[in-house]
Amino acid sequence: MSTDLVRWRLDIAYDGTAFIGWAAQPGQRSVEGDLAGWVGRILSLDEPPRLTCAGRTDAGVHARGQVVHVDLPATTETGRSEMRDTGAVLAHRLPRALPADIAVRGVTRAPDGFDARFSAIWRRYVYRLWDDPADADPLRRYQVVRHPEPLDVSLLADAGADLIGLHDFAAFCKRRDQATTIRTLQRVEAVRLGDRTIEVTVQADAFCHSMVRSLMGALTAVAAGRKDRTWLQGLLTRTERANDVTVLPAHGLTLEEVGYPADAELAARAAEARTTRSLREERA
Amino acid sequence: MSTDLVRWRLDIAYDGTAFIGWAAQPGQRSVEGDLAGWVGRILSLDEPPRLTCAGRTDAGVHARGQVVHVDLPATTETGRSEMRDTGAVLAHRLPRALPADIAVRGVTRAPDGFDARFSAIWRRYVYRLWDDPADADPLRRYQVVRHPEPLDVSLLADAGADLIGLHDFAAFCKRRDQATTIRTLQRVEAVRLGDRTIEVTVQADAFCHSMVRSLMGALTAVAAGRKDRTWLQGLLTRTERANDVTVLPAHGLTLEEVGYPADAELAARAAEARTTRSLREERA
Repeated sequence: MSTDLVRWRLDIAYDGTAFIGWAAQPGQRSVEGDLAGWVGRILSLDEPPRLTCAGRTDAGVHARGQVVHVDLPATTETGRSEMRDTGAVLAHRLPRALPADIAVRGVTRAPDGFDARFSAIWRRYVYRLWDDPADADPLRRYQVVRHPEPLDVSLLADAGADLIGLHDFAAFCKRRDQATTIRTLQRVEAVRLGDRTIEVTVQADAFCHSMVRSLMGALTAVAAGRKDRTWLQGLLTRTERANDVTVLPAHGLTLEEVGYPADAELAARAAEARTTRSLREERA
Repeated sequence: MSTDLVRWRLDIAYDGTAFIGWAAQPGQRSVEGDLAGWVGRILSLDEPPRLTCAGRTDAGVHARGQVVHVDLPATTETGRSEMRDTGAVLAHRLPRALPADIAVRGVTRAPDGFDARFSAIWRRYVYRLWDDPADADPLRRYQVVRHPEPLDVSLLADAGADLIGLHDFAAFCKRRDQATTIRTLQRVEAVRLGDRTIEVTVQADAFCHSMVRSLMGALTAVAAGRKDRTWLQGLLTRTERANDVTVLPAHGLTLEEVGYPADAELAARAAEARTTRSLREERA
């Protein structure tokens, strides 16, 4: 086996219901633990490889567009003592090996300078709600949250627009020592689909821990008429986690897509992100 | 409690994964059993009421648009010794009582002559497939079937059109003594969605047991290039279940909607259906 390591990009999706979250924790089932374990077993590594993901999702949060990188030998010896491209081996064997709640949609050689976490320029999450018990679809009960009050979706969208831009989102973040809570919220959109499910799209350069679910708690408080937009705007001036903001349940949240710049800009972006955001955590 | 019975229409949805099917069976968990049990408990009936549904779904088959009727007293005594409209009591209490894999979307007083089974003029099912492992979405793994071969969706649609009309679908039906297998297939449509999921819509006046899943087995055999359209058309001339037709897995199938005529025609439709289809079973 070659000792030269190559960076591979894995595009994955998972149902977060049965996981403690992305991050491996002793004695718990995690996406990272399952995925690293199977990559290690398939390639007969001495230990599971280290994985880096774009968004460290919490327990119960789903992903359709999670991106992971892992550094592995370029080629791998197969059962017939042939050397094969490691990415091809993983693309073939991972989908058959992984449990049904994780899917690998692509294994590709990462372009130079690619870092799943630091090269990313945006993360897009969607939070899904039903505000009328009659709309509930049992087939999606682990992915859509039932909201007890009717929600004004256009008010929710307008309130969301108030938050767009570069702000200190401390009111919406679980505080970590020394971690900055300044983020650029790029997009907040709310629509009611034909089946009456409310989908709220939230996109930012990065999110801090519990930020999307806290934003949803604040936006639904406005959309339900419990709070007004002045209160919401005032949250952007706070410097600590706001106790009057509810964190909505994890299972309504899905990491849908992660954006990266053109290949030529990957390394520069990663270097910039490492410097300016070295104390940040990408979490949801 | 009044002894005059009123017919109520229940619109329900369920995730079929954990049920033995619609029909109650001793010692097994069924949709009928759970629903009748909760209606009986909420209304303090001596025993669960008898339910009639539009489509008796099999184990693992889902429903978003199942229709049920049940004959119950017009009013019900509540805890405060008040008499309340039975439908209002059920609409309020059933969603809170039922397990999370059954949803009641509506409880309405049925129009005169309404029969959930015999008044129906069509049933619409959708069968969902992924023909590329890279498209699999773990969040919908219990509702979409992974197909091992690539499928030509326009060929599938064209082949489906060959089956439309009044035919003996014996080749596609699990035989029941004396039951006719003549049905009118009204619609077969196949589309590939933006996320590459294949959705096949199948609508008929009624279906016999395992018919949709057998139709899907035959249509996918053509769409994968294993069989040709001449073989498919020949199935319509057979008088017995065809051993060369595979029954596709239950979990890809969802009863999406049931159609009824205008209120004034309900009774006539039910009488007609009872006469001409008295030996039929509505099954999926």
